[in-house]
Amino acid sequence: MTTANHFELLACDGQARTGRLTTPHGVVRTPAFMPVGTAGAMKGLHWREVREAGADIVLGNTYHLMLRPGAERIAALGGLQTFTGWNGPMLTDSGGFQVMSLAQLRKLNERAVTFRSHIDGMAVELSPERSIEVQRLLGSDIAMQLDECVSLPAEHSDIERAMRLSLRWAERSKRAFETAAPGYMLFGIAQGGDVAELRQASARGLVEIGFHGYAIGGLAVGEPQAVMLAMLEEVTPILPQDRPRYLMGVGTPEDMLEAVARGVDMFDCVMPTRNGRHGVAFTRFGQINLRNARHADDPRPLDEESPWPSARGYSRAYLHHLVKSGETLGAMLLSEINVAYYQRMMHDIRDAISQGTFASFRERTRAGWEKGDIAPR
Amino acid sequence: MTTANHFELLACDGQARTGRLTTPHGVVRTPAFMPVGTAGAMKGLHWREVREAGADIVLGNTYHLMLRPGAERIAALGGLQTFTGWNGPMLTDSGGFQVMSLAQLRKLNERAVTFRSHIDGMAVELSPERSIEVQRLLGSDIAMQLDECVSLPAEHSDIERAMRLSLRWAERSKRAFETAAPGYMLFGIAQGGDVAELRQASARGLVEIGFHGYAIGGLAVGEPQAVMLAMLEEVTPILPQDRPRYLMGVGTPEDMLEAVARGVDMFDCVMPTRNGRHGVAFTRFGQINLRNARHADDPRPLDEESPWPSARGYSRAYLHHLVKSGETLGAMLLSEINVAYYQRMMHDIRDAISQGTFASFRERTRAGWEKGDIAPR
Repeated sequence: MTTANHFELLACDGQARTGRLTTPHGVVRTPAFMPVGTAGAMKGLHWREVREAGADIVLGNTYHLMLRPGAERIAALGGLQTFTGWNGPMLTDSGGFQVMSLAQLRKLNERAVTFRSHIDGMAVELSPERSIEVQRLLGSDIAMQLDECVSLPAEHSDIERAMRLSLRWAERSKRAFETAAPGYMLFGIAQGGDVAELRQASARGLVEIGFHGYAIGGLAVGEPQAVMLAMLEEVTPILPQDRPRYLMGVGTPEDMLEAVARGVDMFDCVMPTRNGRHGVAFTRFGQINLRNARHADDPRPLDEESPWPSARGYSRAYLHHLVKSGETLGAMLLSEINVAYYQRMMHDIRDAISQGTFASFRERTRAGWEKGDIAPR
Repeated sequence: MTTANHFELLACDGQARTGRLTTPHGVVRTPAFMPVGTAGAMKGLHWREVREAGADIVLGNTYHLMLRPGAERIAALGGLQTFTGWNGPMLTDSGGFQVMSLAQLRKLNERAVTFRSHIDGMAVELSPERSIEVQRLLGSDIAMQLDECVSLPAEHSDIERAMRLSLRWAERSKRAFETAAPGYMLFGIAQGGDVAELRQASARGLVEIGFHGYAIGGLAVGEPQAVMLAMLEEVTPILPQDRPRYLMGVGTPEDMLEAVARGVDMFDCVMPTRNGRHGVAFTRFGQINLRNARHADDPRPLDEESPWPSARGYSRAYLHHLVKSGETLGAMLLSEINVAYYQRMMHDIRDAISQGTFASFRERTRAGWEKGDIAPR
């Protein structure tokens, strides 16, 4: 059975691509960064700010949402978009990654993974079929297959076992998704750790099954950046040109720039909001730690040429004070500034690819980060 | 020496008054509620939201700001308005109240209060003169005299001693303020606990000294509401009609409604933001605890007739979920909803006084609160 295609490739520049992904809740311009709204909320941001920052799509965590408030409840309340007030495209992960990182007493077998909720200790079973059911109840525009992700470094045999299981779960996920309404999408996830031939086998297996899009999972889990990029180079040539490619859980601006150069279209990461809560701003000068005493008397904004008002409108001295004082507003402003920086970077990447100037954009952007912050006063 | 008057009384309705107070950073419509931005930030709100909610003026805490980031630093950075980005009128308290509630190793004598900072243990001295100096460095539109506030219940002799000391400090504060730029204001603070004749003596003493406005301090510190209102009835007839009256640290919407009925013009309280962080919303149905399970499946907003978008635009189920999950957005939304409710109430109070309908407004508003929340579904 062929799988309907909702992705339109608009331009390529080397391996880098720009396109449009049409979902039931709107169009996603790619390359796209998806801010993470774990439990149906973006930490420190109003939804309108996420939208104003330029995000077309956000990510919700199935694990969190199924435990609280519950998928059936969200469905009864009209789905995630109606429930949260984010009236745009939403991708949900499968829940598998958080089961591995957050839940207690995990037990995994061919059929499913069972675990105890980290919230109330209740026993829960998550199978490929249940994961799809939950994501359909949530009403996500893009659902992800349940997979098993191993942290690196790991034994070859463990990596292979998890990859083969993930492929069998990919098939079951696809069957469970067959009755989904038109326009909704399911992505398969390539696993295989840091082993080139396992990555290739995984990608080939997924393409054979056929998905609306393809994710590369199990990276940015402890391996060096060079390993991550090498794995991308193994996988992307196998994936169909006309389908979106999503590198899960990535990453720093530099990771994303390099991944786009290797043909990736979509990203998600908690970094802009998490680092914002810890007093770190992403800028064209690289990451700036506002806790540093050098900012205490500095009346200059983070970046006076930033298109984002808060990056221009507040002094480093004020941001430093807010961070040092533990004021919520510090986390709110830095999270917003960081999400906006990520989105602006994606906007500029799309422009550069359209104009065939991605190579020079990449070089210029990297040079800015490497030069570092403006000199103290 | 006469003290310049920046207050214009526009209308009276019984004892209730509405007017305009002109400050160097703008006009304050009274009755006014001042949200509290303790350390130069409003917890959970952007400044633009404070403004949109209808606040003309906010309060900053001298104690917090002098310890971190420091008054001299804020002055060098252009004053509180430039530093924070709140470009409107600002009142600062004297620091005395927080010295009593937060600082360690307090020692009070005729000259000053000395204490150790709750942040770094550093020894600090706060005299009436230093309090005024700090507030002038901060650039506050309205400075408050340093006073001593005793918590109730207390012995008559303690209340009297603190009230007499506060009067002597009022005189010293006024002298220290004499060189302030025109348009900036200093308010005296009436003390006297729950003892009618001490309250009267305090008010008379302050009027003799002469201030731009008069505050009633040392209330809402543990006494019943009836005692607070009885004390107001002792003090307000002594205060000049043509000067603003500020009831410090008050309070609930009901406290404010009753205080306005007794001739008070200004209020401040952390309650809208603090209760918001604890999952409680202020509405025309009274206080609503969003933690309550009755909201878990309720698709209805807090108040579908509220003029504030967030009070109409999010379901009780979503707010319940955010509060239960400890999501920052829950605190942000409820703080914003509460500040907006307080401001809307002040707006409606001003309208009612202008139209001579305050008595019926008061009755109708109280009846709404007493009726309570809408029935569960």
